[in-house]
Amino acid sequence: MEPRNNPNPASGDDTEIVSRRIERLSLHLNPTPRTLPDGDRQIGMATCARPKLEVDTGKLSGYMRGPHRDVQEKVFDYFESRPELQTPLEISKNDHRELCWRQLVGLVREAGIKPFRYVADDPAKYFAILEAIGSVDMSLGIKMGVQYSLWGGSVINLGTQKHKDTYFDGIDNLDYPGCFAMTELHHGSNVQALQTTATFDPITDEFIINTPNDGAIKWWIGNAAVHGKLASVFARLMLPSHDSKEVSDMGVHAFIVPIRHLDTHETLPGVEIHDCGQKVGLNGVDNGALRFNSVRIPRDNLLNRFGDVSRDGKYTSSLPTVNKRFAATLGELVGGRVGLAYSSVAVLKLAGTIAIRYSLLRQQFGPPRKPEVSILDYQSHQHKLMPMLASTYAFHFATSYLVEKYAEMKRTHDEQLVGDVHALSAGLKAYVTSYTARSLNVCRESCGGHGYAAVNRFGTLRNDHDIFQTFEGDNTVLLQQVAGDLLKRYQEKFQGGALTVTWNYLRESMNSYLSQPNPVTARWEGEDHLRDPKFQLDAFRYRTSRLLQSVAVRLRKHSTTLGGFGAWNRCLNHLLTLAESHIETVILAKFIEAVQNCPDPSARSALKLVCDLYALNRIWNDIGTYRNVDYVAPNKAKAIHKLADYLSFQVRNVARELVDAFDLPDNVTRAPIAMQSEAYSQYTNYVGF
Amino acid sequence: MEPRNNPNPASGDDTEIVSRRIERLSLHLNPTPRTLPDGDRQIGMATCARPKLEVDTGKLSGYMRGPHRDVQEKVFDYFESRPELQTPLEISKNDHRELCWRQLVGLVREAGIKPFRYVADDPAKYFAILEAIGSVDMSLGIKMGVQYSLWGGSVINLGTQKHKDTYFDGIDNLDYPGCFAMTELHHGSNVQALQTTATFDPITDEFIINTPNDGAIKWWIGNAAVHGKLASVFARLMLPSHDSKEVSDMGVHAFIVPIRHLDTHETLPGVEIHDCGQKVGLNGVDNGALRFNSVRIPRDNLLNRFGDVSRDGKYTSSLPTVNKRFAATLGELVGGRVGLAYSSVAVLKLAGTIAIRYSLLRQQFGPPRKPEVSILDYQSHQHKLMPMLASTYAFHFATSYLVEKYAEMKRTHDEQLVGDVHALSAGLKAYVTSYTARSLNVCRESCGGHGYAAVNRFGTLRNDHDIFQTFEGDNTVLLQQVAGDLLKRYQEKFQGGALTVTWNYLRESMNSYLSQPNPVTARWEGEDHLRDPKFQLDAFRYRTSRLLQSVAVRLRKHSTTLGGFGAWNRCLNHLLTLAESHIETVILAKFIEAVQNCPDPSARSALKLVCDLYALNRIWNDIGTYRNVDYVAPNKAKAIHKLADYLSFQVRNVARELVDAFDLPDNVTRAPIAMQSEAYSQYTNYVGF
Repeated sequence: MEPRNNPNPASGDDTEIVSRRIERLSLHLNPTPRTLPDGDRQIGMATCARPKLEVDTGKLSGYMRGPHRDVQEKVFDYFESRPELQTPLEISKNDHRELCWRQLVGLVREAGIKPFRYVADDPAKYFAILEAIGSVDMSLGIKMGVQYSLWGGSVINLGTQKHKDTYFDGIDNLDYPGCFAMTELHHGSNVQALQTTATFDPITDEFIINTPNDGAIKWWIGNAAVHGKLASVFARLMLPSHDSKEVSDMGVHAFIVPIRHLDTHETLPGVEIHDCGQKVGLNGVDNGALRFNSVRIPRDNLLNRFGDVSRDGKYTSSLPTVNKRFAATLGELVGGRVGLAYSSVAVLKLAGTIAIRYSLLRQQFGPPRKPEVSILDYQSHQHKLMPMLASTYAFHFATSYLVEKYAEMKRTHDEQLVGDVHALSAGLKAYVTSYTARSLNVCRESCGGHGYAAVNRFGTLRNDHDIFQTFEGDNTVLLQQVAGDLLKRYQEKFQGGALTVTWNYLRESMNSYLSQPNPVTARWEGEDHLRDPKFQLDAFRYRTSRLLQSVAVRLRKHSTTLGGFGAWNRCLNHLLTLAESHIETVILAKFIEAVQNCPDPSARSALKLVCDLYALNRIWNDIGTYRNVDYVAPNKAKAIHKLADYLSFQVRNVARELVDAFDLPDNVTRAPIAMQSEAYSQYTNYVGF
Repeated sequence: MEPRNNPNPASGDDTEIVSRRIERLSLHLNPTPRTLPDGDRQIGMATCARPKLEVDTGKLSGYMRGPHRDVQEKVFDYFESRPELQTPLEISKNDHRELCWRQLVGLVREAGIKPFRYVADDPAKYFAILEAIGSVDMSLGIKMGVQYSLWGGSVINLGTQKHKDTYFDGIDNLDYPGCFAMTELHHGSNVQALQTTATFDPITDEFIINTPNDGAIKWWIGNAAVHGKLASVFARLMLPSHDSKEVSDMGVHAFIVPIRHLDTHETLPGVEIHDCGQKVGLNGVDNGALRFNSVRIPRDNLLNRFGDVSRDGKYTSSLPTVNKRFAATLGELVGGRVGLAYSSVAVLKLAGTIAIRYSLLRQQFGPPRKPEVSILDYQSHQHKLMPMLASTYAFHFATSYLVEKYAEMKRTHDEQLVGDVHALSAGLKAYVTSYTARSLNVCRESCGGHGYAAVNRFGTLRNDHDIFQTFEGDNTVLLQQVAGDLLKRYQEKFQGGALTVTWNYLRESMNSYLSQPNPVTARWEGEDHLRDPKFQLDAFRYRTSRLLQSVAVRLRKHSTTLGGFGAWNRCLNHLLTLAESHIETVILAKFIEAVQNCPDPSARSALKLVCDLYALNRIWNDIGTYRNVDYVAPNKAKAIHKLADYLSFQVRNVARELVDAFDLPDNVTRAPIAMQSEAYSQYTNYVGF
């Protein structure tokens, strides 16, 4: 049909091939002819395949496994043994709340797993329990987090011995279900602007809790709508002067406020509780709204670790300023972010496992006269799922490191570690939860129609996980904390101050990163070079250093005309990019360490492959930045792109082993389309065939 | 604390500013000092603001409004008058299905709106009804689409007069609720591989419908689980030879198969129906699975427009090949894609309106001693929502154009138009629904905790819309059709063949686009140049042309070693990028036209602003590509970035007017946080205060 030997290079043979391609691959409209040569059997990547990597799943899994797998298996076994405690796909909000409460009671009182004991003393074990029960029902994980990490955590971390003596056992055994009443209708992120007041009454030796206006109604308070009996309420401590003519605002403090009668469960006088109603997800958690009208509590109910009021109305604190007290108060609550970052990786593992197992099973289209191929054999599908799998591994090691450091911090109270864990938990929580939220959509979409069946779990996972991006600190706000912290370190660097471990790279090599890119290495494009951890880490660090230096200059420039707030806002997108770049750098560094420390050579090879994909995919995603300063030459950019695609293909070849190493048995993944055998049959059985 | 006049430029003043910033803006931990100068009042963008654009919302809205607003208002009024037909936030699957059916019956029989009449004769009106009822409940929109566009459409488009005579009225008035039974458990995208058979029995003059294996069970069939009485079943037409010793497979055809008794509603013999169960969303639609065991239907039930079987078992068709018949069959179903693209824009408008109105209301943080600022004043928030608003406008004009062309095609049956509408509907459906799906997440996240309240709608919108990416053609498959079509046009260009309207730019300027970038214009960075539609469109077209030319070369190269299928797969990511780039180019071209055609100068100015943001944001998003071939010089890249941020800020200043112009009254948006007055009160009222 087309002239052969057409001198136009864009025509001739390739137009014929193109024409054949259109005939065969414009998929809906143009059917596959049955008369094509055998050479067509390849599926696109086959000829560049090297010998497939052999991965010993057991060894890889063993290396990944945390030290608390035993308690996780105890959780799985308990819920396996109590099918009536499993959450059905369709359940009303009210039934779900009751079930979730029964699940928690069963876990604590029947299975004898007592998470509260680990909140302070063995956080790694606490997070392991959280991960396991989150896979049973994320609502249960959050319900547990509200009770033990938020309500319980506020009592033991912000209170003193008298509070532990009074409340520990009741919280532990669920006699005292409680709430963490911080957020108000008008104020979430800006905690310092909370408006609820706690005014000391020197005559009765009480605090009077008040909601001064509707904007100050405590909102989204977990456990408040149904089960909570007590709440730690964050309110401005108002202290009258000696003659009661003036009142001093001492800033936000936490107070234990009973909201329902311990025996009758009736709402107490002065407390008004409404149900926040149906949510996008997590409907097993009963969020409520609380309005206080002159509710009196004893002075002892002030959680007084960082600030106290004496019988005669004098304020005392070991910390000198309202800001330092506030920082200390919120600093104690950082565990929630650690838990969310860690749990978010668990969700990503689960969703990735389902999507990848199904994508290996599912076949659609194929070369002429050949069987259809797995959809994971398509380059586009590899592009969707393989960098995600690589990121999951990367996040696994980064959040495991965070948990370790957090536990160490709780043990040692080392001040440098406190700062490091604070910034790292903020950054990882923000980065990982945003990534997981996006990925859940990709997973659903990559499983097509069957991904839309509720039984295959993407809907619930997404709806439940969604709010991870917001609670315990809005991600955009948290990333600004990371950026602020980096700017502080940057300033300290130039003054010779101490740098915490995670930031060391800034001191060690800021200057070299800020010099002009090397025009020779900018052209190196060999695979060995691109897969050299030094090249990868240098590229990440270069980007972060450059973003940091340039935003500091811009902030300085704009501050003179716009003031501090205005300058910060003018540079906000830049600051967020900086924070993400830094977090990616930390993640890569931890991943490279994890590869190097892996004792088994086969597992190490697999991890190295995945780590390279993580690194090169990220560099390619931001190639504009690298190109714009000639950090990489045009041909090197192309080589990075090509290698990232190729590594996706390589990872696809061991994708099954890589998800198996997450060690999620079928009774945890539960999605019929992801069963490790007879998935389609289990799916048709589920529907009733 | 820091030394002033520090000679190090990275230190000194800016470190002090930075230090102050950290104190004030590391938001949770570092409180705002109360002692900052007045100069801090700006919020970052104020000093670069020009006089605010005055937008006449009425005129802009009038220009945007389609010709069928009247029937939409009739829909809104009807449901407003029947509160018992409004879908509550919490409803069981079964109740939702019944309610959805009652909604549809009410619309047709009580409100007297008869959508079936417009499916073929006035599709623009049909889509306007679809848009309006989709905002009542997306399940209702899909339920209507199943009945009228899929089931009804298959009868009138694939059948002949005898079918219309028999079925039109019953479909129209809902006496014949029906299904569109195409997808099977094992085959969705690959429709040609469907396995259900329809074997002609010359003795009884019947077809026998069979499900040969479980993989061929019809799956996800809307209306099948509960309400459907008939189905158009897609099956391979099997024709026995004269002596019945052999059977010829004539390819996939559609057959009308009764599945439930018209009077008793009992499932008919040989038909096995199961409920596909709970879905991620759209639970008002009853999707079922169908297995056929020797179900006999009269020969007349073959929808025989493109192929028929005579009494004596002879096959006749006006179309010469099985492929052309298949193409003609599926080509008639393209209306579904047009409807989804159009409805997806409606969802994007709704979600964007809610997110933007709330972001204007919500205040959090602010300069010291000043009121808190709207969160839409933050650069990061503008970055999330303003390019999305610009895209919504862009998609509005592009899909309106598509609807117009589709209506013209249905009227004229012009062959060139058929090809154009097919590719454009595939591309816009894929591009727009993917964009909307991502944006729904951004909208929820940008509204923080209150975005997570079910009453504020993001959850339902996302869950319902999610499957738009999959049904009526998986987006990844559809984009490949666009790429295939482009390659075909590319080939035709070099042979002087005809190009359809949308592709004209390829012929007109392919050569100029493929020449080396002009090193002079690559450095132009003035605002007038960057906002010149010619620069913008040239940049889009350049990218598409380059991607097209390079992928043709790559396909040619790889075909020799990998064969056609393998080469296509090796280039798949490249092909998808090409398809997206082309669709973006078409969208921009239509947007520029719409700006130029707008008669009112103030509305035109607003549209021009939004169009520039759309164009520059897209160019910046792909800046790596442009930089890599030096299409833009480094400083021009920076200028584009800066201008895109600045335009986001400018659009923010008229964001309220721009969403008002979508003309969505409060009883359509419904989310309390998006009410146009007293939003917080309406929200607290909703919860019970």
